[in-house]
Amino acid sequence: MNNFEYKNPTKIIFGKDTIEKLTNEIPKNAKVLLLYGGGSIKKNGIYEQVKTALKNVEVIEFGGIPANPEYAVLMEALNVIKNENITYLLAVGGGSVIDGTKFLSAAAVYDGDTPWDILKNSIRTQKGMPFGTVLTLPATGSEMNSGAVITRKETKEKLSMGGPGLFPEFSILDPKVITSIPERQLANGLTDAFTHVLEQYMTYPVGGLLQDRFAESILQTLIEIAPKVMEDPTDHEAASNFMWSCTMALNGLIQQGVPGDWAVHMMGHELTALFGIDHARTLAIVMPSHYIYNFEAKKEKLAQYGERVWNITEGTQDEKAKAAIAKTEAFFHQLGIDTKLSEYIKDYEGTAQEISKRFTNRGWTGIGEHKSLTPKDAENIVKMAY
Amino acid sequence: MNNFEYKNPTKIIFGKDTIEKLTNEIPKNAKVLLLYGGGSIKKNGIYEQVKTALKNVEVIEFGGIPANPEYAVLMEALNVIKNENITYLLAVGGGSVIDGTKFLSAAAVYDGDTPWDILKNSIRTQKGMPFGTVLTLPATGSEMNSGAVITRKETKEKLSMGGPGLFPEFSILDPKVITSIPERQLANGLTDAFTHVLEQYMTYPVGGLLQDRFAESILQTLIEIAPKVMEDPTDHEAASNFMWSCTMALNGLIQQGVPGDWAVHMMGHELTALFGIDHARTLAIVMPSHYIYNFEAKKEKLAQYGERVWNITEGTQDEKAKAAIAKTEAFFHQLGIDTKLSEYIKDYEGTAQEISKRFTNRGWTGIGEHKSLTPKDAENIVKMAY
Repeated sequence: MNNFEYKNPTKIIFGKDTIEKLTNEIPKNAKVLLLYGGGSIKKNGIYEQVKTALKNVEVIEFGGIPANPEYAVLMEALNVIKNENITYLLAVGGGSVIDGTKFLSAAAVYDGDTPWDILKNSIRTQKGMPFGTVLTLPATGSEMNSGAVITRKETKEKLSMGGPGLFPEFSILDPKVITSIPERQLANGLTDAFTHVLEQYMTYPVGGLLQDRFAESILQTLIEIAPKVMEDPTDHEAASNFMWSCTMALNGLIQQGVPGDWAVHMMGHELTALFGIDHARTLAIVMPSHYIYNFEAKKEKLAQYGERVWNITEGTQDEKAKAAIAKTEAFFHQLGIDTKLSEYIKDYEGTAQEISKRFTNRGWTGIGEHKSLTPKDAENIVKMAY
Repeated sequence: MNNFEYKNPTKIIFGKDTIEKLTNEIPKNAKVLLLYGGGSIKKNGIYEQVKTALKNVEVIEFGGIPANPEYAVLMEALNVIKNENITYLLAVGGGSVIDGTKFLSAAAVYDGDTPWDILKNSIRTQKGMPFGTVLTLPATGSEMNSGAVITRKETKEKLSMGGPGLFPEFSILDPKVITSIPERQLANGLTDAFTHVLEQYMTYPVGGLLQDRFAESILQTLIEIAPKVMEDPTDHEAASNFMWSCTMALNGLIQQGVPGDWAVHMMGHELTALFGIDHARTLAIVMPSHYIYNFEAKKEKLAQYGERVWNITEGTQDEKAKAAIAKTEAFFHQLGIDTKLSEYIKDYEGTAQEISKRFTNRGWTGIGEHKSLTPKDAENIVKMAY
């Protein structure tokens, strides 16, 4: 097990009818900017619940944060924060709204030339503007971590940011919200959380026995509840386990003391930036090819995953490892998620080269668990995923 | 899954040679009271490491906190805190020293008549004097939770306390410390952590699928590493997993959204208070009888535990559940832990009645997961454990 430092101060308020608890979490004298996305919260009743809970504080609204939160839109919100002397941010949404809010939390206190530097220069935020979240879409885990990913259409870029000052002060997780989520988004959420776990688990072994088992626990739970969630989102038990699994998949816990890979995310982000493919789907596209391309390095853990998570008991280590990749792809297919780039876009030729070029231009000489995958390796992997 | 609220702000600094990081965690202008136990830290080099890391802050020492931290001793430490205007506490020790430090953190800011009221009247501490810990004995999980148990010899009492203000600000977990722990203490630590998980897991099912699997993960890991830790405490992988498992067993995470039992602890505490039997051993004494006595209520989860943790695949649900209890007792025996009261003390007659009487006198009408076990039930359980 590697050395680590871990602190996660986010307060989780979990369960049925918990949105009303918002009232106790926001400082009485706060001036709140309520941030949300495309407006679905106005149709499913969440907006009303939030507004009722906030009736005794001053609130200004900023809606319209798009999936893959867009820098230009966020800059408009930043103007509102500055002009209105906002003191507290409240994200009501999924990962995109929460990530966008984290960027705003950082940008609101940033005193450099342009807030884009936070992303371009990987500036860590030690203390941002305080914010909380009401999660409406289980998927990214952003509700209990300090990272965010921001997109800039202008330059077709998608970059990460973070820092210890960007944990939500609180996050309200009411599993009832999933009843109004479209099937497509549910499938994305399941896939996203599943892949988050794999990025932190499918790596070279360092004797993190407990971390491995926690990761396997989340994977097993997602596999168990996925068909139930898709079939009946009103199933409270399934919804609760779905929501809590997504949070635990990326709140930092299973990453402690073990290597992370994250190469799938690095390549996936480019597919979203280039073609607008849903984040989760880009992961499902890249992941199988990544594991096949790096089979030798990963086969030990792949076989363990096959045995413990998919109950594959027959065959050699190699066979178990290959069967585990196949099982994973089948799981995505079962959710209605395609796993080849050509199933999403016709004009995919040159994509691998473009991604390789972008990595080179950014100076990314090595990605993945060993920081050893070159831009050329990324090109090969993406090509395999066509 | 039940509703829950969870926040755990303790910063964990984990790994080899991390004690030196203490320097960065204590405020520069602090006046520190360094608390420790019987002085073993002066033999194993930990004291030197701590003193070196603290060389630039003002430090006063208070040693001699006994196992089952004693109220009278802690009151002496409280005098030091007040007379010396201490501003920060540092616990260097195991659960007893850390629990004692939590009491002091609460008592230092308490303005009632007598600090014993904090225990007697279950007063929750919202904000205590800040403190950190350097863990020298993995077992209780106190290094990452906000609870403590304090003993008062004068009245043969052992009572719990806690509150959101009693999380350590940081805890340093260097697995190397276990190389100097006597075998008896290692066995106690393994048993203690194992039982902590069972108290939060061996309860009526509420559909906490992920919580169940996390609990099972810790149990499986403890079973896997127990013989390695006992045989060779210098095995870094085993030591690391041991230490992290003990912390995760009682940092609140696996308790979220599911019922807790804790009846074994309630009865066990009395055995320590009456006879001075090591805490972990009292749990191993009471636990099998508790599960047999409450077999009908617990057999579903017992059978699941048997299947998933002990790989018991044969037999009916009842048979699997019984086999699981037997496996657990065998595990304790393998660690050199006896599981009958008569193996610890000769003069045990009347113990069950005495415990029953104490519960009645304290007004404890019902303990356990359903709060339904009466003092008479406790009497029957303890009798079965003779």
